[in-house]
Amino acid sequence: MLIALFPGDGIGPEIVAQAKRVLDALGIDGLTYEEGLVGGAAWKAVGHPLPPETLDIAKRADAILFGAVGDPDCDGLERHLRPEQAILGLRKELGLFSNLRPAKVFPELADASALKPEVASAIDLLIVRETNGDVYFGEKGFRTTAEGWREGYDIMSYNEAEVRRIAHGGFQAARARRGKLCSVDKANVLETSQLWRDVVIEVAKDYPDVALSHMYVDNAAMQLVRDPGQFDVILTGNLFGDILSDQASMCVGSIGMLASATLNAEGKGLYEPIHGSAPDIAGQGKANPLATVLSAAMMLRYSLGLGAEADRIEAAVARALAGGARSADLGGTMGTEEMGDAVLAAL
Amino acid sequence: MLIALFPGDGIGPEIVAQAKRVLDALGIDGLTYEEGLVGGAAWKAVGHPLPPETLDIAKRADAILFGAVGDPDCDGLERHLRPEQAILGLRKELGLFSNLRPAKVFPELADASALKPEVASAIDLLIVRETNGDVYFGEKGFRTTAEGWREGYDIMSYNEAEVRRIAHGGFQAARARRGKLCSVDKANVLETSQLWRDVVIEVAKDYPDVALSHMYVDNAAMQLVRDPGQFDVILTGNLFGDILSDQASMCVGSIGMLASATLNAEGKGLYEPIHGSAPDIAGQGKANPLATVLSAAMMLRYSLGLGAEADRIEAAVARALAGGARSADLGGTMGTEEMGDAVLAAL
Ligand SMILES: CC(C)[C@H](C(=O)O)[C@@H](O)C(=O)O
Ligand SMILES: CC(C)[C@H](C(=O)O)[C@@H](O)C(=O)O
Repeated sequence: MLIALFPGDGIGPEIVAQAKRVLDALGIDGLTYEEGLVGGAAWKAVGHPLPPETLDIAKRADAILFGAVGDPDCDGLERHLRPEQAILGLRKELGLFSNLRPAKVFPELADASALKPEVASAIDLLIVRETNGDVYFGEKGFRTTAEGWREGYDIMSYNEAEVRRIAHGGFQAARARRGKLCSVDKANVLETSQLWRDVVIEVAKDYPDVALSHMYVDNAAMQLVRDPGQFDVILTGNLFGDILSDQASMCVGSIGMLASATLNAEGKGLYEPIHGSAPDIAGQGKANPLATVLSAAMMLRYSLGLGAEADRIEAAVARALAGGARSADLGGTMGTEEMGDAVLAAL
Repeated sequence: MLIALFPGDGIGPEIVAQAKRVLDALGIDGLTYEEGLVGGAAWKAVGHPLPPETLDIAKRADAILFGAVGDPDCDGLERHLRPEQAILGLRKELGLFSNLRPAKVFPELADASALKPEVASAIDLLIVRETNGDVYFGEKGFRTTAEGWREGYDIMSYNEAEVRRIAHGGFQAARARRGKLCSVDKANVLETSQLWRDVVIEVAKDYPDVALSHMYVDNAAMQLVRDPGQFDVILTGNLFGDILSDQASMCVGSIGMLASATLNAEGKGLYEPIHGSAPDIAGQGKANPLATVLSAAMMLRYSLGLGAEADRIEAAVARALAGGARSADLGGTMGTEEMGDAVLAAL
């Protein structure tokens, strides 16, 4: 089984290296790796954030382990050359439409949240975010209005096929968890949301065992602060999912701990920490690698069918934390490699 | 001076009645009132959420005091007949483009937030939200894709004139506060945001004394949970402002306390609590009227040039709270009218 390793920018190479050590330590038969350039690193080396060679590795691989992209040196570049295009391009080219972001508090870290401990410790939710459509991928550009003003525009849209496939993913995830699905939209203003809501209601007929509710996105942003424990699975579109999943991750407190998977229809996936490339601490060996280690566990479970090995990684991370492993973001002093050591010791 | 009173749906009539009592108690010379139907109440009475007679009152008035709209009886109606169209229609017809939502914790209520008290008590921010453009008012509808799928779409856009006028409002507000402006967009994905960012940077040249920063909306949603005390003025578009201002209000803890103003270029404004119509407790005399009372204070200050009278109302509300006035949402047992009594007693 081929794993594409795309470390990317900033702290990406450091954290991916630790995840690779953990994977190696499991001694899984038949895992091979190919490394590729993405993001600002790729632009600096070959002039494009997602070079054809990288895309080729991604297409051949069974799963992609991704670090992070984002580099201040690229701020002035034209949009199609910016680091973010690597992740957007991979999502689109490989049809990776189902972004899964679980948010759950590790008991040892409940104090790290800005929320009161009794509010934060109740969080156990999964955001299912669509990542192939919405205002991200519609026609966009600049034009001049009748009055001669410069105008920027982006077309937001969803069609029923796009909504249906992600809705099935959401309902199935809810069924495998606590059976509650909250679909988030802005149907009181947007026709894109009205279509979304109509299709989610149609798909719900196939899942009579799942309790479906609908919430406007402004209310959802309030409820995620007021009482995040009320949510099981949140199903939403690309733009609202971007906002709410980052908000939810911060409610958990330690963004350095949160993993994500983005799957296509065949179960191939891209796995990455939800945090960014943190250019301010890049190369200093300070970054917390656990979100990437946990992303590797998700990869074993979802794309490689190795659930038992995924469990081993997750248990080792929990044990390392219980044993006091703390990087700077968790209020401790351990570096990236020491955190990796702690997980390896716990394995 | 003519004030349009639009109580609307749900708890709207109860809370507006208390604000009117407080205004009456100030004994301001020359204030007159005309009441109008809006929202579901208007649809039930005359078949439209924003009848021409109501719009006429709004146009003649110097300011509008608005309760809330939203009625579950209207859920199945076509979009143009739904209660929300009243507020969207008033914003558009009167050119009310500058929505100001201050969020600050009353010391007596710091415990009400889901955030840790030390995080919540640091909140003192103002969201300046554009409310005449963005994906709210662009072309929208349903169409069929080449594959025959139903599709919903909404065009998001901003032109330089729209951004410029709200940006000036944001910079002026920052200048009158702590001199910090954070502009929130999603310029790494949206051309609408790129135009927004470019124009904000141009306008910044007129305000060298204001410290400008830019933040992506996903990061802003995180930072509002992690460390809301970092913000002074947040400047943003219609959609992101909708989400972030509701989120910020919940960080404060007591959404029943937060007032808002929406101004046009001439300083005419619509004043409303940021909470909704709360149909579940409508007509029971339980709702907290303080957000509406505080909205009336904003109205005196911004549209009627009566700053001293506004100060009196705000001081009376603070005194009522210090004296123990608590409605159910604040953990107490006082009803809507008793809360009004407490403010009157403190005046
Ligand atoms: C980097 C950016 C384009 C991306 C997004 O908006 O999807 C990121 O914020 C994410 O959530 O993965
Ligand atoms: C009722 C709705 C259309 C409105 C909006 O989205 O602007 C409301 O949420 C608000 O923030 O005033």
